[in-house]
Amino acid sequence: MSLSIFDHLWLSGLFGDPEMAAILAPERQMAHMLAFEAAWSRACGKAGLFDAAKAEEAAIAIEAAEIDFEDIAAGMGQDGVPIPRLVKQLKAIAPAEALHKGATSQDVVDTAMVLALREASSLIAGRLIELETHLKTLEDRFGDAPLMGRTRMQAATEMTVRDRVLVWRLPISDHLKTLDQKRADVEKVQVGGASGDRKALGDKADFVVAEVAKTLTLAPTDKTWQTMRHGIAGYASFLSLVTGSLGKIGQDIALMAQQGIETVSISGAGGSSAMPHKQNPVSAELLVTLARFNATQVSAMHHAVVHEQERSGAAWSLEWMVLPQMLMATGRSLSMAIELVQNIQRLGDPV
Amino acid sequence: MSLSIFDHLWLSGLFGDPEMAAILAPERQMAHMLAFEAAWSRACGKAGLFDAAKAEEAAIAIEAAEIDFEDIAAGMGQDGVPIPRLVKQLKAIAPAEALHKGATSQDVVDTAMVLALREASSLIAGRLIELETHLKTLEDRFGDAPLMGRTRMQAATEMTVRDRVLVWRLPISDHLKTLDQKRADVEKVQVGGASGDRKALGDKADFVVAEVAKTLTLAPTDKTWQTMRHGIAGYASFLSLVTGSLGKIGQDIALMAQQGIETVSISGAGGSSAMPHKQNPVSAELLVTLARFNATQVSAMHHAVVHEQERSGAAWSLEWMVLPQMLMATGRSLSMAIELVQNIQRLGDPV
Amino acid sequence: MSLSIFDHLWLSGLFGDPEMAAILAPERQMAHMLAFEAAWSRACGKAGLFDAAKAEEAAIAIEAAEIDFEDIAAGMGQDGVPIPRLVKQLKAIAPAEALHKGATSQDVVDTAMVLALREASSLIAGRLIELETHLKTLEDRFGDAPLMGRTRMQAATEMTVRDRVLVWRLPISDHLKTLDQKRADVEKVQVGGASGDRKALGDKADFVVAEVAKTLTLAPTDKTWQTMRHGIAGYASFLSLVTGSLGKIGQDIALMAQQGIETVSISGAGGSSAMPHKQNPVSAELLVTLARFNATQVSAMHHAVVHEQERSGAAWSLEWMVLPQMLMATGRSLSMAIELVQNIQRLGDPV
Amino acid sequence: MSLSIFDHLWLSGLFGDPEMAAILAPERQMAHMLAFEAAWSRACGKAGLFDAAKAEEAAIAIEAAEIDFEDIAAGMGQDGVPIPRLVKQLKAIAPAEALHKGATSQDVVDTAMVLALREASSLIAGRLIELETHLKTLEDRFGDAPLMGRTRMQAATEMTVRDRVLVWRLPISDHLKTLDQKRADVEKVQVGGASGDRKALGDKADFVVAEVAKTLTLAPTDKTWQTMRHGIAGYASFLSLVTGSLGKIGQDIALMAQQGIETVSISGAGGSSAMPHKQNPVSAELLVTLARFNATQVSAMHHAVVHEQERSGAAWSLEWMVLPQMLMATGRSLSMAIELVQNIQRLGDPV
Repeated sequence: MSLSIFDHLWLSGLFGDPEMAAILAPERQMAHMLAFEAAWSRACGKAGLFDAAKAEEAAIAIEAAEIDFEDIAAGMGQDGVPIPRLVKQLKAIAPAEALHKGATSQDVVDTAMVLALREASSLIAGRLIELETHLKTLEDRFGDAPLMGRTRMQAATEMTVRDRVLVWRLPISDHLKTLDQKRADVEKVQVGGASGDRKALGDKADFVVAEVAKTLTLAPTDKTWQTMRHGIAGYASFLSLVTGSLGKIGQDIALMAQQGIETVSISGAGGSSAMPHKQNPVSAELLVTLARFNATQVSAMHHAVVHEQERSGAAWSLEWMVLPQMLMATGRSLSMAIELVQNIQRLGDPV
Repeated sequence: MSLSIFDHLWLSGLFGDPEMAAILAPERQMAHMLAFEAAWSRACGKAGLFDAAKAEEAAIAIEAAEIDFEDIAAGMGQDGVPIPRLVKQLKAIAPAEALHKGATSQDVVDTAMVLALREASSLIAGRLIELETHLKTLEDRFGDAPLMGRTRMQAATEMTVRDRVLVWRLPISDHLKTLDQKRADVEKVQVGGASGDRKALGDKADFVVAEVAKTLTLAPTDKTWQTMRHGIAGYASFLSLVTGSLGKIGQDIALMAQQGIETVSISGAGGSSAMPHKQNPVSAELLVTLARFNATQVSAMHHAVVHEQERSGAAWSLEWMVLPQMLMATGRSLSMAIELVQNIQRLGDPV
Repeated sequence: MSLSIFDHLWLSGLFGDPEMAAILAPERQMAHMLAFEAAWSRACGKAGLFDAAKAEEAAIAIEAAEIDFEDIAAGMGQDGVPIPRLVKQLKAIAPAEALHKGATSQDVVDTAMVLALREASSLIAGRLIELETHLKTLEDRFGDAPLMGRTRMQAATEMTVRDRVLVWRLPISDHLKTLDQKRADVEKVQVGGASGDRKALGDKADFVVAEVAKTLTLAPTDKTWQTMRHGIAGYASFLSLVTGSLGKIGQDIALMAQQGIETVSISGAGGSSAMPHKQNPVSAELLVTLARFNATQVSAMHHAVVHEQERSGAAWSLEWMVLPQMLMATGRSLSMAIELVQNIQRLGDPV
Repeated sequence: MSLSIFDHLWLSGLFGDPEMAAILAPERQMAHMLAFEAAWSRACGKAGLFDAAKAEEAAIAIEAAEIDFEDIAAGMGQDGVPIPRLVKQLKAIAPAEALHKGATSQDVVDTAMVLALREASSLIAGRLIELETHLKTLEDRFGDAPLMGRTRMQAATEMTVRDRVLVWRLPISDHLKTLDQKRADVEKVQVGGASGDRKALGDKADFVVAEVAKTLTLAPTDKTWQTMRHGIAGYASFLSLVTGSLGKIGQDIALMAQQGIETVSISGAGGSSAMPHKQNPVSAELLVTLARFNATQVSAMHHAVVHEQERSGAAWSLEWMVLPQMLMATGRSLSMAIELVQNIQRLGDPV
């Protein structure tokens, strides 16, 4: 079993997000990689780079391929990427001359990542909308209740619950708007070939790129983005801003739940092994933890923009270590925030 | 003299950026704060919250105020913000009843910051355009020259200089486009009052906000953004993406300048105290350093999004420590990249 | 299957470290937690806090307990810690009055973590020694060969291979020495009880702490360290310094392997899907990636030192997200460095 | 004036630390660099590498040198280091053949840094001792007072003030002990010469190193540490652990000062421009800010351990950007903690 809190034997009970985990599952990644390879065969077939019938035969075989993952893992240790072994496996079941040729490992791996990001973005968008609705409901229910404003941890002036809850909700609306742009920044097919110049495709390059993009419902590109990682890092920054905004909600609620302050009541708060009477704002704390986690990870994604020459193995694989975790943290933060906000029984100064 | 490399007695010779430093100078910050206070008096005068004549009198006095900075510094240590002492000084030279009332420290400090960001953004935009032009020139001059593509630090396939230089330029074009959105995200007046609810302004709140915004050429807001810091953190992320893209250029050039590779010649490279014959790619290395610096700092800006309740002294002042430095690093990275690209004498495989 | 690169279906082929993974496996963590609970029952039995016979009966039952992990996971989501459900399960199979009483969740979880750190430290120590030996061998084999020194990426003056390899080895020796102190800093039993004051143990506190510590071969403490996390963060810093030193080796080797430089030959370098002739220094790059990964993660561990009041759920669980990954990265970096150094066929200037 | 908060026209009133700033002042750095050059001349004179009389003449001239800082700054932009111009200036006033020869820029700059670290460590040690004393006094004054323990932001069980204050003090004692080791790790002379092999010194290398070390009261080294930066990064980690421990104190006090909790009274808390009645725990918040600042910066210092070949301009100068700021943040955090702890008027549950 995994040592990662996201799919740990029991820590996943708190940190896990089954829907996001399904999107990021290795098997799904493999399905995306095969989708690329099949689209590639067909596009090159249409372009006349591969024999059209062989290409279709290859695509069908690729789509139905049963992958030997142990072999891929062994190749990973050797090659640093899964594709050489994957291609070898595919060549054993499909016409070798009508697959992968002209593409490179990074084309497959990056395009598969982008396909995962697309699904993750849809999940995130849906949850942002859901959270926005629940926060609106909070305002409707408790907005007029008096609440002591607190600045620098100190009582300031009397205001209303609406004043605090509105600043929980507005960032969510902003993030929803931003997400469209962030999606456009990353939902682009990766096609570069050996050194990123698409030379092996000759004058069919634009056609092949457009075909593959169309099949996978991604945007085509004039130039491969394999070494231009600011789009990915910008997407990661977006994720961290989302968890940051949710961390602010969590921090506020944890502070409001303190005995002596008691400006929130939450149902379903956590228990203690030493003090059975105690109610712990576990979900509020988790939002803070996930915010700080992503605020740390985002740094690695920015370091990975320094991507030397035509492909940096070092910078590229740093993304693999960090980006899936940022997606998991964001997904979980959203699902937890939705749950927490719905569990609020009361907001406002104690009467 | 300063211990900061950006205005250090001699390190500033490498890290300094006089234009950006002028934008971020304390005296200019103070001018922005006074501009807010003057706009505030006038807006409240127009709104009927202050006596109109007194308000104009106050605004004129504020604009001409000579500030006792030592007193402000002493107040800073006491209050954690410069405004209580500043207001006290202003009340000594202007009608006390017609200034600052209804505003709070954060309104002044954040609006002043935003005015600085506007100037910084203009400087950055200009340099991005300039760099884009010089990179285009590089392509025109050397684009057709053969260049061995290198992936994972290893010779891959022969390509052209254009293939490498194009991925230096395209991110710059992207950043230029993104900057407009980032500017819109932050160029917003900050008006909240004591707890951020603008209560002291009563039904004149919208009017006052609109007036102050108009005077300072910033966008008005329906709700104060004092605790919603994702806009600022998103702007900081943008800065780090810019330096990341420039860091990639620097890393490439440093690698290209190696003896044995020699695919670039640069004029004006640095000397060594031990080896007078040696030419060091100091400017290329600096781009890498500044990229890693900002990739680190951006993390703090994301942590600062977790901003508790109506004002977090702790999270807010973390921004003061980090954001000006990120602007300096970005400004310097751009000016150095412009210089470096112009100093390129040759690109491409050695003949 | 896991989305974490450390136990991913195929990425683990590159990033995985089976020995370290076994140490950090959830099942092993559970065994450590049960070891604590059994030691606790016995210690309280000896102290007269529990009936001695019942305590022994409980300890034996705890040691043989078959845990329902699904139930623990469900409790995790509720309580934010696994212990309330674990204790409930244990009470169903052992005398309820003779277990856990006087301890708290953090005592169990932190002590279990420390037991894992002890095993991890032994693994790390063994590998540091092994790597040191192989680096010594490199010196013996190639030390006298001439090698062009390179400063700022530029050829400087002629030196020998020994000059470069020695600075690869000396930090390893330093880290070995430091590890002893780091182990002493963290291998301490955690016993605090509800608020960390051991009050429930009355005048038996010192005795119970000493007994539990002795059973688990950890150091006793006068005061619980539950909110003093600098020891753990210092240990994490050590891990990142190890991977940093190995990252320097990896960076050097990747640079040395470049065509045109060719001052190293490595057997078993990785293949490319597009260029079967190409040999990629995958293992050298991985050392750089893992160094940058840990250099990022260490920041989170330092943030987690800001641990509010008697227990911070937010800061504490941030450690769970980060520390196991840092251990995995360190373990893998060491095993990869050992392999890489052994695969070196030649070092020194090309003849 | 500086844009750095540490020596900003008014922000320095809060963030400034005049004693640490004096240690890190450029003029003092220059004095350290000149001290190295003078020691170098004398050591080489004794070793017979320089004419002894000329060497003494050079040393005396170096010690009395009036440096043209503008020229150094101009050289910095050119060479990336201050030393080529400095040496040129020195040669104009002293026998050229009896100075600097055999040393390199990094020897001078790193040794000067280490001399600054030595002074900074003494300042830090003194303040740790002072803070420890004041925390002991707190225990003596208020230790027996009842205080509600709080875990996960929630009231847990009744304990005493001693239970909380003791965990403020014990880490300070730990840090004091650790500092000795950290000092030993860094207080080492840097002597490498061109490529770090001391070749220019021939068989006098050990003698020269020992002499320079003795003169500057630093430890000699068998091998230059110019590319082994784990000592420096470990020292930086120590700084961040200190500010982390103080951040915990600050976070606790800010929470204790909340209306509704009121378990601390502090004299001299800060004022608000909008709410003159308000007392803000500015100093407590500052401790949190500085902890998060250093927890971020420490990441850059760990990245800088990946120091390629015989000198990495990129990694090395990243340290210059970060380490002085970490020292300032640590110095200020300590001075503020000392002040804050002394300003505590009352600790414990409200009666």
